[in-house]
Amino acid sequence: MKEVTIAGAGLTGTLLSILLAKQGYSVRLYERNKDPRTSFVKGGKSINLTLCKRGISALEMAGLGEAVQELWVPVYGRCLHLNESSLELQPYGNYGEALYSISRQDLNSLLLSAAQKTSGVSVEFGLKCMGYDLEKSSVLFIDENQNQIESPFATLIAADGVHSAIRYQMQRNHGFDYSQFYSKHVNKELSIPAELAKQYKLEKNHLHIWPRNEFMIIAFPNRDGSYTCTLQLPFEGNDISFKNLNTESELLHHFQKLFPDAIPLLPNLVEEFFKNPEIPMVTVRCSPWHIQDKVLLIGDAAHGIWPSYGQGANAGFEDCEVLCECMAKTPDDFLVSFAEFQERRIQNLNAIADLSENHFNEIRHHVADSKFLLRKKIERKMNQLFPSEYFSLYARVAFTKTPYKQAVDMESFYHGLIDELLKIPEIVLSPDSSESEKLIYKTYQKHLNKENYNIDKYLH
Amino acid sequence: MKEVTIAGAGLTGTLLSILLAKQGYSVRLYERNKDPRTSFVKGGKSINLTLCKRGISALEMAGLGEAVQELWVPVYGRCLHLNESSLELQPYGNYGEALYSISRQDLNSLLLSAAQKTSGVSVEFGLKCMGYDLEKSSVLFIDENQNQIESPFATLIAADGVHSAIRYQMQRNHGFDYSQFYSKHVNKELSIPAELAKQYKLEKNHLHIWPRNEFMIIAFPNRDGSYTCTLQLPFEGNDISFKNLNTESELLHHFQKLFPDAIPLLPNLVEEFFKNPEIPMVTVRCSPWHIQDKVLLIGDAAHGIWPSYGQGANAGFEDCEVLCECMAKTPDDFLVSFAEFQERRIQNLNAIADLSENHFNEIRHHVADSKFLLRKKIERKMNQLFPSEYFSLYARVAFTKTPYKQAVDMESFYHGLIDELLKIPEIVLSPDSSESEKLIYKTYQKHLNKENYNIDKYLH
Repeated sequence: MKEVTIAGAGLTGTLLSILLAKQGYSVRLYERNKDPRTSFVKGGKSINLTLCKRGISALEMAGLGEAVQELWVPVYGRCLHLNESSLELQPYGNYGEALYSISRQDLNSLLLSAAQKTSGVSVEFGLKCMGYDLEKSSVLFIDENQNQIESPFATLIAADGVHSAIRYQMQRNHGFDYSQFYSKHVNKELSIPAELAKQYKLEKNHLHIWPRNEFMIIAFPNRDGSYTCTLQLPFEGNDISFKNLNTESELLHHFQKLFPDAIPLLPNLVEEFFKNPEIPMVTVRCSPWHIQDKVLLIGDAAHGIWPSYGQGANAGFEDCEVLCECMAKTPDDFLVSFAEFQERRIQNLNAIADLSENHFNEIRHHVADSKFLLRKKIERKMNQLFPSEYFSLYARVAFTKTPYKQAVDMESFYHGLIDELLKIPEIVLSPDSSESEKLIYKTYQKHLNKENYNIDKYLH
Repeated sequence: MKEVTIAGAGLTGTLLSILLAKQGYSVRLYERNKDPRTSFVKGGKSINLTLCKRGISALEMAGLGEAVQELWVPVYGRCLHLNESSLELQPYGNYGEALYSISRQDLNSLLLSAAQKTSGVSVEFGLKCMGYDLEKSSVLFIDENQNQIESPFATLIAADGVHSAIRYQMQRNHGFDYSQFYSKHVNKELSIPAELAKQYKLEKNHLHIWPRNEFMIIAFPNRDGSYTCTLQLPFEGNDISFKNLNTESELLHHFQKLFPDAIPLLPNLVEEFFKNPEIPMVTVRCSPWHIQDKVLLIGDAAHGIWPSYGQGANAGFEDCEVLCECMAKTPDDFLVSFAEFQERRIQNLNAIADLSENHFNEIRHHVADSKFLLRKKIERKMNQLFPSEYFSLYARVAFTKTPYKQAVDMESFYHGLIDELLKIPEIVLSPDSSESEKLIYKTYQKHLNKENYNIDKYLH
């Protein structure tokens, strides 16, 4: 039986262990942390997680489609808190499309329990991966007592996250292209207790967003009625930033100005702000993702993306699905499987990395902008009229399995179409009138002809 | 007396030690290798070096302006070997402008001897820098017996090259943006003995170039009449590449096709090709270059650039000159000096990094192209007519001290002007006729008015 060693029992590594064991591999899974199901996990470090179709599809492959439903909260749209008195509800789609808010730790625990029940998977905790020795085919760990441990591997898959020790080592190889790019903003975890969410009647099953240009709060619903929030603000600079907020009174002074309507929901603001760590956002791109048929990067180790599009974990899960397809195709030649995996994934991950950086700026600055809202309205109308054909870029990423790169390529066509529609006053004034619908059909047809658009070229 | 520790006694680190000691600092300089003046240095790894005005200016600051002249060979232009029978001489300028070909080891030895003669500089060899401990303000070394040595520092300057251990450590810091990008080509050192250069009458005081699109040989003159060559070819791929050239007969077969005219000059081709290592080319960009007032990156450690523009060492020397200016301005506040140094240098280094990548492709593909040659001719004419005003981009980089970014910005104006001139048949046919000169003056004036060009905005 072929052996695979996976470094990192986070979301991607653990799901991959299950899927590979189901394909008949013997999988050894190593994790630096203690078992999160039995030991205390320090909080305050999560940026909450939403699952979408891509991620759920891979969980279903692992037989976890039902179990995961017990853990999540469906989220059908955004609720924008534009100011103290004005709310704006933005449904994600016309047909009840939802994202699924879930705690990272709950999901990880589910996966770990499933992995340990899967025949062929062994899991060891408390072993921090330090790198590999290619000549000896061994992977290097440090245990909790700082002992060095060397373990042989046949094939090593690095799922050890955005600061992957294995990737840092690969970076020294000639020909390894690499970049890391940090946002100028950092995140801080805050929380809204269930009773306050109820008292202030926060719209259920929505992400709540307080957009204030350079500053933003996003609240993700938990199953107990509470919300876990991410506060985003600049790390440093002359204006308000983490580095300049050093006292309780400075913090409250600026919060009063920026988020007066959120303060009543955040009773532990001061404590949480000064206790919880700053969480940076980093885009990581690299190439190649593998060393021959011996070592492969996957998930955040291969591609860090900012969490703004909610695709980090979903992209990692989709990696697992694609890798399993590639390994099933050429089970006796991992070199071919790994090369195909990279070929299929790398341009898609570069596309979602770009999108995540752009969306981060869009959502902070434009989400409350009237032109942006108008565009969203026309996009929803288009999707009503062409439900199997037209999706906004956001919807195509979040609610379909269209490869990211393809979604971006299609958008260059559709963005121009929406531009055309936005120039027609009838459509802008009453998009639902039969006159407007006729105009939409006509404009769409004209745009198709003009652009000589052929959907086939976007299908792979 | 303020202490500065410099990691790396290559060209940049050693020059910097002299300049800082002259400013009154006590400098401790550490080098991983043995003293190159007294121990055997393995050859075959150099890409030869040409000094230009930027680099020479910094050497003059160190009092080495005369000594270095004893070591170099002036190079007044390129000699293109287009095929067996056709040579093309391209002078670098109208006024005897030259690059100065010099052996890296000779230059390094000169600098080391000068450093050791400079009061306030101490040099230690055989100590490989492994990183730093910021809390303890100590720098970590390994000596030749693998003993770990910790040495305290007040201020640490990392001149430890493109694979800087200090930078690799800084890379783990949040907010440290970083990228490394490799060429698909690698270099291999070959050599032309003096007697063959003489026998085949290689034009003296020229770089000799055999451009063959994906393949190229560049020969740099040495003082003894021999030439050190760089062979560039793709590292891997379906066509001819290092990875596919595994036997003597494969090598000779392809060399006969590509470089029949170079073969007689390269009597040790086979031995050198298979013995000498592949030298990759990598662009490294990062930011920030310093940690507070404690640690600073300089030279290749801060900015790796491909050697194609011949600016690597020159940029490192220019760094030294600028850093000394910044440190002289605010000697009591290194945080301000380092921030100003980065501010003045980073966009210039990004500009020369781009130029070096682009020039690498240009020189391989276009150097023998008739349109390219025509443009060069018109550029030379422009420089004749406006000798203090107009320089081609190459000349501005190689023969002036115009900051790199400014040179690139100015080129966007001048490139358009040359485009205009190339459209005028009289000028193309006989640029030296008085009619053509009048047309050039007129076109220049028109272009100035059209672009509303103001030289002042390019002066800093």
